Amino acid sequence: MKRLTILGATGSVGRRALELVEQFPDEFSVEGMAVRGSRPELIVDLCAKHRPRALALFDPAAAEAVARALPRPRPEILSGAPGLVTLAAQVDADIVLSAIVGGAGLLPTMAAIQTGKTLALANKETLVMAGSLMTAAARLRGVALLPVDSEHSAIFQCLEGHRRSDVQRILLTASGGPFRTLPKAQLERVSVAEALQHPTWKMGAKITVDSATLMNKGLEVIEARWLFDVSPERVDVVVHPQSVIHSMVEYIDGSVIAQLGVADMGIPILYALTYPARLPCNAARLALTEIGSLTFEEPDTDRFPCLALARRALHEGGCAPVILNAANEVAVAAFLDGRIRFPHIPWLIEEALTRLPNQALDSVEACVDVDARARALTTEWLQSEQLTGAIAR
Amino acid sequence: MKRLTILGATGSVGRRALELVEQFPDEFSVEGMAVRGSRPELIVDLCAKHRPRALALFDPAAAEAVARALPRPRPEILSGAPGLVTLAAQVDADIVLSAIVGGAGLLPTMAAIQTGKTLALANKETLVMAGSLMTAAARLRGVALLPVDSEHSAIFQCLEGHRRSDVQRILLTASGGPFRTLPKAQLERVSVAEALQHPTWKMGAKITVDSATLMNKGLEVIEARWLFDVSPERVDVVVHPQSVIHSMVEYIDGSVIAQLGVADMGIPILYALTYPARLPCNAARLALTEIGSLTFEEPDTDRFPCLALARRALHEGGCAPVILNAANEVAVAAFLDGRIRFPHIPWLIEEALTRLPNQALDSVEACVDVDARARALTTEWLQSEQLTGAIAR
Repeated sequence: MKRLTILGATGSVGRRALELVEQFPDEFSVEGMAVRGSRPELIVDLCAKHRPRALALFDPAAAEAVARALPRPRPEILSGAPGLVTLAAQVDADIVLSAIVGGAGLLPTMAAIQTGKTLALANKETLVMAGSLMTAAARLRGVALLPVDSEHSAIFQCLEGHRRSDVQRILLTASGGPFRTLPKAQLERVSVAEALQHPTWKMGAKITVDSATLMNKGLEVIEARWLFDVSPERVDVVVHPQSVIHSMVEYIDGSVIAQLGVADMGIPILYALTYPARLPCNAARLALTEIGSLTFEEPDTDRFPCLALARRALHEGGCAPVILNAANEVAVAAFLDGRIRFPHIPWLIEEALTRLPNQALDSVEACVDVDARARALTTEWLQSEQLTGAIAR
Repeated sequence: MKRLTILGATGSVGRRALELVEQFPDEFSVEGMAVRGSRPELIVDLCAKHRPRALALFDPAAAEAVARALPRPRPEILSGAPGLVTLAAQVDADIVLSAIVGGAGLLPTMAAIQTGKTLALANKETLVMAGSLMTAAARLRGVALLPVDSEHSAIFQCLEGHRRSDVQRILLTASGGPFRTLPKAQLERVSVAEALQHPTWKMGAKITVDSATLMNKGLEVIEARWLFDVSPERVDVVVHPQSVIHSMVEYIDGSVIAQLGVADMGIPILYALTYPARLPCNAARLALTEIGSLTFEEPDTDRFPCLALARRALHEGGCAPVILNAANEVAVAAFLDGRIRFPHIPWLIEEALTRLPNQALDSVEACVDVDARARALTTEWLQSEQLTGAIAR
């Protein structure tokens, strides 16, 4: 029986993980759950079903509402950002599944690592922001960082049993998003609804927009660089619209190992929870003869500049990826709110990378500071007349 | 420095292996070479280049001719079938590469196993004939059987690092051969030259015809059953005309691991010789975006009955695969000589499986006996008026 803490229990990864816990009641128990608090009824339901010892809600008002709604005996209830950190660090768990979206996951994820818990990592933004610090802390504590992102789970599976010194390069596959074939001029006019139509995966809104801009793949290049300790020029991206091959590793002899499967996060989530064993996941089976054809093309960084921006931030190092991530989160939120158009997302990120001063990433505090500063400034620009003018042009 | 003995040094696998030895002179030395003897000048050249300690020629006349042609100091020269066995058993080698085509490889391969040498196995027919005996002997002596066939090397690589108990099924890929899209009626009229036009791999004549009939894939199902100790119903075949994915393993969670590469036997040969390490093979690199598309379809056992015949022989057990293999070798030779037409190959094999009595596979001698009997009877039928009549109809 493995005891789990799930950070982001009401998100799409968190809910899929809880389905797997239900499928395998003898394998897993839920000890702790952390949520934002935007869906109180769902939280009450999940508590009734999984009976965690502790529950942390980011939103203090939601924490009070949920506490009132839960029948006794109820879990210990924590609240606010410090509540999430306390839950991640103090609840006795064998594995912490970090599935909070965005930079909000950084502190609880670091807390889990620093208390020596095996980490199943779905939150790519934390690695993008603080990859060097997280991997150093994990090495220091002997903590395993098990990827949950389908691409990184694929790479992890393709590396198992082969020598790291024999790796030539990592081949991250990208669906290309809903606008893969759209001419550049038309990107100006795409709607939020169109951006949320991912061709192969059903995911949350933020990551779906990131897939449409290819920023998701840029973040994944940074994630791969840290998770697998490879230099960035050894991480290549290939567009593969069917999302059947989740990623590949090429070895020095020319042999390429790939991991394939249906587009169901259940497979990589379960593998992270059972590694090195496997369990019969309730996902559909891959039927290659029904799919018929798998295609591959080069990514277009002219129409989708975010991939190149992510590489630029990785190359600049220090806190540049923190700035990249913060500006992207603010820009995507603005796009989802209808305040900016699709091409303004990379525009804002480029502005942030160019105009904000970089600094050494020497502590989580530096990371948090730069993140806050970048968010504040990007938000300010969004509201400034000057930028409104630039965006309108 | 690994010391090699190469059985079948002048065949397509043997020559590719010797190219790799030339590429990596500090990694490998050639201690022994066994050949049929049909290309004396090539043999003399290879001896001059690689300076083996011993050379075995199946053809005694060729042995004499080569001995006369070789400058001194010359290698020890052995001849005839016993000479091959002596070479395989007695030359001091770290790895024996078994790359003789067809049943002729059986006795030297068994001799290598019985003297405890690591075996790199390119000769699938030996496993088809005597898989249970070979794997039992290998277990007894603690001998590693490393696959060289590109499909089985792929499967081997896809199994490394994952638990055997988690394997759901093996997915052998097949190019489908040159007649993949040809209507059944036209198979009657295909020429030898057409059958030798393999769409993706350059190989010897026998295996190329086997690829056209799909018998090659049937033999590979049997080979996989023994090499990986899986039940036959867990070995599926999928037609993949581009031959880019060399094979796959599906695990119980729905995750599929695949091995991909260009169609160059150098990669699987080198992997068997360097396992578990790798070396930078001088093969071309896989360029998926240039290939563009990988396709998949079900095999058609109506037009290509050999695949079903191989499964039947595996199901019947005992010496049925020996009969299958012997009849196939005789039939393919007759097709290459222009004595029968393409659809007669499965016809003859089915006759042999139906009419020859099966028996327990309790010794290599039983295997050799049944093999000789099946070859003799199939050859006799080929010459009999009754069969000539049946074939003509």
